[in-house]
Amino acid sequence: MPASLAAVGASKEAFVQAVGGCYEKSPWVAERAFAQGPFASVSSIAAAMKQTLAEATDDEVLSLLRAHPDLAGRAALQGDVTAESAAEQAKAGLRSLTGEELSKLTSLNERYTAKFGFPFILAVRNASKRVIFASLERRMAGDLMEERAEALAQVHKIAWLRLLDAVEGNGKGFLTCHVLDVASGTPAAGMSVTLTRLGDHGDLPSSYAFTTNADGRLDGPALKGPDFCAGAYEWTFHVGEYFAATGVATAPTPFLGDVPIRFGIDNPEEHYHVPLLCSPWTFSTYRGS
Amino acid sequence: MPASLAAVGASKEAFVQAVGGCYEKSPWVAERAFAQGPFASVSSIAAAMKQTLAEATDDEVLSLLRAHPDLAGRAALQGDVTAESAAEQAKAGLRSLTGEELSKLTSLNERYTAKFGFPFILAVRNASKRVIFASLERRMAGDLMEERAEALAQVHKIAWLRLLDAVEGNGKGFLTCHVLDVASGTPAAGMSVTLTRLGDHGDLPSSYAFTTNADGRLDGPALKGPDFCAGAYEWTFHVGEYFAATGVATAPTPFLGDVPIRFGIDNPEEHYHVPLLCSPWTFSTYRGS
Amino acid sequence: MPASLAAVGASKEAFVQAVGGCYEKSPWVAERAFAQGPFASVSSIAAAMKQTLAEATDDEVLSLLRAHPDLAGRAALQGDVTAESAAEQAKAGLRSLTGEELSKLTSLNERYTAKFGFPFILAVRNASKRVIFASLERRMAGDLMEERAEALAQVHKIAWLRLLDAVEGNGKGFLTCHVLDVASGTPAAGMSVTLTRLGDHGDLPSSYAFTTNADGRLDGPALKGPDFCAGAYEWTFHVGEYFAATGVATAPTPFLGDVPIRFGIDNPEEHYHVPLLCSPWTFSTYRGS
Amino acid sequence: MPASLAAVGASKEAFVQAVGGCYEKSPWVAERAFAQGPFASVSSIAAAMKQTLAEATDDEVLSLLRAHPDLAGRAALQGDVTAESAAEQAKAGLRSLTGEELSKLTSLNERYTAKFGFPFILAVRNASKRVIFASLERRMAGDLMEERAEALAQVHKIAWLRLLDAVEGNGKGFLTCHVLDVASGTPAAGMSVTLTRLGDHGDLPSSYAFTTNADGRLDGPALKGPDFCAGAYEWTFHVGEYFAATGVATAPTPFLGDVPIRFGIDNPEEHYHVPLLCSPWTFSTYRGS
Repeated sequence: MPASLAAVGASKEAFVQAVGGCYEKSPWVAERAFAQGPFASVSSIAAAMKQTLAEATDDEVLSLLRAHPDLAGRAALQGDVTAESAAEQAKAGLRSLTGEELSKLTSLNERYTAKFGFPFILAVRNASKRVIFASLERRMAGDLMEERAEALAQVHKIAWLRLLDAVEGNGKGFLTCHVLDVASGTPAAGMSVTLTRLGDHGDLPSSYAFTTNADGRLDGPALKGPDFCAGAYEWTFHVGEYFAATGVATAPTPFLGDVPIRFGIDNPEEHYHVPLLCSPWTFSTYRGS
Repeated sequence: MPASLAAVGASKEAFVQAVGGCYEKSPWVAERAFAQGPFASVSSIAAAMKQTLAEATDDEVLSLLRAHPDLAGRAALQGDVTAESAAEQAKAGLRSLTGEELSKLTSLNERYTAKFGFPFILAVRNASKRVIFASLERRMAGDLMEERAEALAQVHKIAWLRLLDAVEGNGKGFLTCHVLDVASGTPAAGMSVTLTRLGDHGDLPSSYAFTTNADGRLDGPALKGPDFCAGAYEWTFHVGEYFAATGVATAPTPFLGDVPIRFGIDNPEEHYHVPLLCSPWTFSTYRGS
Repeated sequence: MPASLAAVGASKEAFVQAVGGCYEKSPWVAERAFAQGPFASVSSIAAAMKQTLAEATDDEVLSLLRAHPDLAGRAALQGDVTAESAAEQAKAGLRSLTGEELSKLTSLNERYTAKFGFPFILAVRNASKRVIFASLERRMAGDLMEERAEALAQVHKIAWLRLLDAVEGNGKGFLTCHVLDVASGTPAAGMSVTLTRLGDHGDLPSSYAFTTNADGRLDGPALKGPDFCAGAYEWTFHVGEYFAATGVATAPTPFLGDVPIRFGIDNPEEHYHVPLLCSPWTFSTYRGS
Repeated sequence: MPASLAAVGASKEAFVQAVGGCYEKSPWVAERAFAQGPFASVSSIAAAMKQTLAEATDDEVLSLLRAHPDLAGRAALQGDVTAESAAEQAKAGLRSLTGEELSKLTSLNERYTAKFGFPFILAVRNASKRVIFASLERRMAGDLMEERAEALAQVHKIAWLRLLDAVEGNGKGFLTCHVLDVASGTPAAGMSVTLTRLGDHGDLPSSYAFTTNADGRLDGPALKGPDFCAGAYEWTFHVGEYFAATGVATAPTPFLGDVPIRFGIDNPEEHYHVPLLCSPWTFSTYRGS
């Protein structure tokens, strides 16, 4: 259960207790960041810890990088890693590596560490084996400066995912939509739209139904407050039905019928605008604002 | 079982036997169109019949329009319609109308016929109740000239769907793909892509796996020959994995992970190019060439 | 000088005097449409006249179509056309046809009229010779119902352009913009944008400069009121400068530097939203809302 | 006058003479890179020098960074910089700084150097004053590792621009186009397209005219060989004319008329595919393949 922002901000001890594990074996990041509070959002805690690292010495950053376990390495196999690391490695399927894969990974890890002086770090929670091997080979070829910057970027990603598990968001984020008909240059009014939450989200509803209004928008946010949590979602836009009803020429078997748009919410404290532009023969989406 | 192009073209009798039902109760369309053969494709049969109607008299076209049964009308309820019409109306869920819906539809049909002099015609096989009611209300407001043109367009759609059921295609169509990374301005090489056939297609495989080559394309067509039939399909592009592997900055929970693109093939004798343009924050597709 | 909405609506006589020429030699359209007033916008006058034609008899519509002069025909050469038609034909360069072109056009016109029973009609003010010949050949191949619908659509376009010359808009339209950075999934803040009016617009300024705010938008409409008139415009988005400043990787000679977006305003009583979506390697625009 | 690839590759001396100035006051980069030859392209020379730096020691890279003059600094004002640096700073308008700007820039440069241990480096040839100040402020806030990586990326950009001035390309690059009509889902056939070269390019033609073929493409490359040089170009697509001719419904004053697409060619040894996707209400382009 994530703690509330209020609880986390109550004292330095509470703060470090809650978020001190975000940066691997480096509670000093949380300790120093606390002074930047009070914090009105999870995002500002993340920013404070990132800022702390920007102001840390080269040696401190290097120590942080070196504090990470090898991916699927001996420590992981023996259980000698933080609980967070173990859970993340498990989700990425690293426990199901074949012997050959494990041996290849170990060898790549060793070469990487020998070259750069710190272990290969990747935010693996959403990574697959394919991503891990491809990343390792690509990054092995980089130069030290680039690679330290990338390793640190991965460390910040890992910290963010751990932070979201540790602290409740401020509830200010929400999701909106807009559908434009680029065949006729008008808002797509009266289009049926559904939103589905992918994955396991406990008690939250998994599906919501909407109809676009005269401006091609939904009346109000599609999701907000506690319903709007990090994770994967999918709109289904009933584009074929819309064009059939409005009389735009389409093929007998339309090129576009029900159009799914799958997207991820990373920061539930932000506004996500995920629109659709469509004609009977094309569609596009993007993170808007 | 659809007949072969060779069998259909063997004689005028065979031709009319096979495709004379494409235009409702109007075998004369096929009879006249036969002279435009021989036909190397289903598409050219469709074009010949369309041309026949373009050269027909106003009265003949009007007779054709009037030959159509009311949607869900008394004739349909009593089974007094062609087998093709009955099957199409069933697929659109018109047999499951509530009493209120049926009564509303009957009343709209009557007003429409009174205004225009021919029944409301809609290619219903892929239409829903919602489309039918929306189309009827919209088209009721049109003027006669516009509406005759639209009714005829619907008639051609119905004829095409019936034709595809009646005659085998020439096998020359195929499906290709291309993935461009618009964040880096390069082909997206090494991206994992799967293609799934939606719906029921007998013995055909339902799923195919690919990896994009150095030019962001698949090596050869994704589908061709008899595998490439009319219907609905879905690409899944492993966009999140691709960007994670190439090192483009993405969110910890990426905005785009596995991206589905659902599309319909209407004419299996044509080339369909269905590409993906993507960055970590946008994607689009279109029917290309 | 266009008349005001108030002046035009003062009496049926004033109304017909002002807008009776919108439909060629058919003041009866304005006469009947007047009853749908009072009119708060030019758009509603256009809608009323369009509705009048939707309710007219087939013979009345046919008379209207037949009232149009041949494009560059004998009547035009002898000056025997309405002032509006003469001006429109002059703008399309029809007075500068070569002898060969004129003879081809005359022959096509005659064949068209013989086939359909009314002359070829095209809203020529923004058309080129190339468009005229291509349209004539395409439409010659159509069937009567389609072609009557298209001819009527052209008649409505001509009427709209004449109406905008005759009556002042209600001043409620305006122009907005939005720039999204689809490489980073954020609004493009701090981008320099200019707007230029193309063509001759009397005393109006020809150029305006803006900077996008934190949401990627301009502070307020770029144009509104009398400044926002029908015609052609061009945004210039300083995309190259934006990406250079924000540190997104670009080529030494960037693929995108200053990006022009040229667009037309047809109805100055409407809101036009003309946004830009861009990465260093792609951009798109559309009429939004 | 750029030297030929053959001349440049003739000896280590010739090589260093030609390209030794690409990396500021660091001919050792060219000296070491020479061993990776022979070079069949300017691109491979660039890659060899980049690789040399990837293999250089931290101290060597730091020395290279430190060898750069301050932008508009005392050295530049006194002429004590390499000819290449002086020319580049002049093109960016750095000689026309106001006293206030110069003093601000000097102060920012000093703070930057004090923080990072090397001067602020920016590939300024295509940069404006606005970009320089915005970049300086942004990069000042970065951490050392990120900033060294970015400084090195700028150094590589500068080297590439100098290299293109020093050595002739291999002539293998070319430019192609493709126009898709996303309103009808077909190639845009018969569209008139022009290509204009922006800037001063000596004896090269400044404009080329094309018409798209049945597949929406040009017959052969629009540019190739010596005509295809680095710099800025602009397509003009006659979209309004195309839609008017094909009969797609558009506004009386079309939203899209002549559509300009301005783009830069950075590497004249590569294939650039710069297509247009358009309906009457949207268009997009991207670097394709």
